[in-house]
Amino acid sequence: VGELRLIEAIRATLGAPGERVVRWSGDDAAVVRARPFAVTSIDTVADGVHFDLTTHSPADVGHKALATALSDLAAMGADPGEAYVSLALPEGFDEAAALEIAHGIAALAAATGTTVAGGDVIAAGSLVIAISVTGWADAEERLVAREGAAPGEVIGVTGALGASSAGLLALHERPAGLEPAIAAALAARHRRPAPRLSAGHALATAGATAMIDLSDGLATDARHLARASGVRLEVDTGTLPIAPGVAELANATNRDARTLAVAGGEDYELLFTIPADRWETAASAAGIPLTRLGRVLEGDGLAFTGPDAADLDPLRGYEHA
Amino acid sequence: VGELRLIEAIRATLGAPGERVVRWSGDDAAVVRARPFAVTSIDTVADGVHFDLTTHSPADVGHKALATALSDLAAMGADPGEAYVSLALPEGFDEAAALEIAHGIAALAAATGTTVAGGDVIAAGSLVIAISVTGWADAEERLVAREGAAPGEVIGVTGALGASSAGLLALHERPAGLEPAIAAALAARHRRPAPRLSAGHALATAGATAMIDLSDGLATDARHLARASGVRLEVDTGTLPIAPGVAELANATNRDARTLAVAGGEDYELLFTIPADRWETAASAAGIPLTRLGRVLEGDGLAFTGPDAADLDPLRGYEHA
Repeated sequence: VGELRLIEAIRATLGAPGERVVRWSGDDAAVVRARPFAVTSIDTVADGVHFDLTTHSPADVGHKALATALSDLAAMGADPGEAYVSLALPEGFDEAAALEIAHGIAALAAATGTTVAGGDVIAAGSLVIAISVTGWADAEERLVAREGAAPGEVIGVTGALGASSAGLLALHERPAGLEPAIAAALAARHRRPAPRLSAGHALATAGATAMIDLSDGLATDARHLARASGVRLEVDTGTLPIAPGVAELANATNRDARTLAVAGGEDYELLFTIPADRWETAASAAGIPLTRLGRVLEGDGLAFTGPDAADLDPLRGYEHA
Repeated sequence: VGELRLIEAIRATLGAPGERVVRWSGDDAAVVRARPFAVTSIDTVADGVHFDLTTHSPADVGHKALATALSDLAAMGADPGEAYVSLALPEGFDEAAALEIAHGIAALAAATGTTVAGGDVIAAGSLVIAISVTGWADAEERLVAREGAAPGEVIGVTGALGASSAGLLALHERPAGLEPAIAAALAARHRRPAPRLSAGHALATAGATAMIDLSDGLATDARHLARASGVRLEVDTGTLPIAPGVAELANATNRDARTLAVAGGEDYELLFTIPADRWETAASAAGIPLTRLGRVLEGDGLAFTGPDAADLDPLRGYEHA
């Protein structure tokens, strides 16, 4: 009965559905007028694993759960569409906090043009949020997979790197030598990642040949792309766009900023490959700064070049926890 | 790393994707060639709440998680399409058991023409499985919602009622007076509910005007349908199709079989309304026995008629736990 009241309250937060949504919450299933290609991903976050309620507000948690799912649509270049939310709440979980999670989801949905078209609220042993998102495309060739990179192309990345892992460290270690404003800005980047939906769509349109979102960190995700495409990626460490505040956090905690940028996860920027002659078109359409990181070669795997590449060698076996 | 190995192992269980699936597991998102209307629902089951690993095998759990989700597509009359699976596993959960869950999902997917096109395996505080399913239809009017029932129509139900809750009781109470073969058959119905996809599709085609799947039990779900349609449903208790073995279980545990049939949840049969002159068409197309339960009247709510209707009165406030 508490679940039913909660579902009603959540429904009230969701606003009007998108115009393609024919039926939504309140029936057995949602019905959506389709476009030619449906692009779907499911993502899950769990308390104590992907977030911590001592450092994240319930709204942060909702935001993050939807952001990580939408980031997969961004990495395909799909237009946003609908989200379906599964909320598993532990016994006695505060109803107001559950509503706040829903508010965090609803706010990001509204900001990205996503309709939360269905959901499920259940009791469980722990807090787990799974969100399935469906985006749309009118033609298969407007979507970008992980495979498709070809030797001779260049490697690019949206935005800047390292802010999320630096924010996580700022939250957990509270380093004394770090300015509070910088710590707060980094923490905000960790708590509220931004799925790069419009950049992903623009890059797909501009001719990106392969793309992946950086959830586990450049060192890991670039290898996924290299393997799927059957190429070698060469990244010049001198070009890495290190996010503002990361150097200060690294300094205050005796870490290396470049390592945070390369190995830190959850930035949710897009790593892509593109023919060099499409770069200017992509850069002017992306709506966010792009950085050219290196080039695509024949072979396999990921290699770092540049003056301090040797220092990054230990990262080659790095897996984000 | 254990998760990655598990994901690889799960992938190996999944067989070939449906022909409309352009990209699937292994990229950031699955890509599916759409039909005009997408029908989507997400459902979640949790250890200790929706199942119990002491009475359900891991494969049962996987089956049940997908079956409950597909049942929502059945209730819309949609054709099956794709499933996206989120598997949250507690620390130290046996990898072989996780694979068995995947096998249970894959077997039901294959049996129903569903492609498991994506998924996510994470660590969490407890075992939670969320499955999002998308089915398809070529026209909106081929789908059946909960609203749409009109006074003068008749009420029908697929299959038989009460077996799932009787099976749950057989598992937990192990009544001495119940024949083992009957107990086993009831338990099987509880562990492996059958989503009525082809019956739902046939009923939609035959002219059903409103439909819902019986997850919480007839007494609860019929009210949902009545409210959504703005009608009164009158069910003759003398007509209830009580599943084989339910009377024996009721007898052995001092319960009332009709109460189990009306109030017991998780049968996943379909309750529907249809004009009386379409009944024969529906009955011959459904591929499963249909039972005429009563009629649709002006008004609201659910009323039981028949000689023992008064005994069922306490059920009016019944909510399945």
